[in-house]
Amino acid sequence: MSTILGAIGMLKQTFDKYAGAEGDKGSLSKKELATLLKAEVPGLADKKEEVDEFMKALDEDGDGSVDFKEYVVFVATLAMILGATK
Amino acid sequence: MSTILGAIGMLKQTFDKYAGAEGDKGSLSKKELATLLKAEVPGLADKKEEVDEFMKALDEDGDGSVDFKEYVVFVATLAMILGATK
Repeated sequence: MSTILGAIGMLKQTFDKYAGAEGDKGSLSKKELATLLKAEVPGLADKKEEVDEFMKALDEDGDGSVDFKEYVVFVATLAMILGATK
Repeated sequence: MSTILGAIGMLKQTFDKYAGAEGDKGSLSKKELATLLKAEVPGLADKKEEVDEFMKALDEDGDGSVDFKEYVVFVATLAMILGATK
């Protein structure tokens, strides 16, 4: 099994898990984004204002939620930051 | 363990595995990129011309190799394509 495709599958499953909690199953509401960040990247955005900042930065099309493409940009940015430090 | 951080770790390990084969351990030569694509995403770029195309598209800074950031952009694009179809 390809590790790249495996990792992409993991990222998609994680998105679906949190996006599916309430409302539109295809995107992350602010509440779902807060839950995802707290669980998946503890310490990155635990405060409300930090989640608001992330929402503003990630919600490129301004529809009030984070869709899969916007989520992938977030994960890619995180990978670049973490990858550059190793 | 965070699945997002786990997936990012898998992506970094995969990059390091192929980038470490020869020359500069921190970037993928065309040969290393060809090996990675063949093994990780079979059928995507099996022909030489296809690898050349990918190299041209991914090597944003034109230094003749694909560094980790350029690799992350490739994986993110792949995730968006695959994620959008599920």
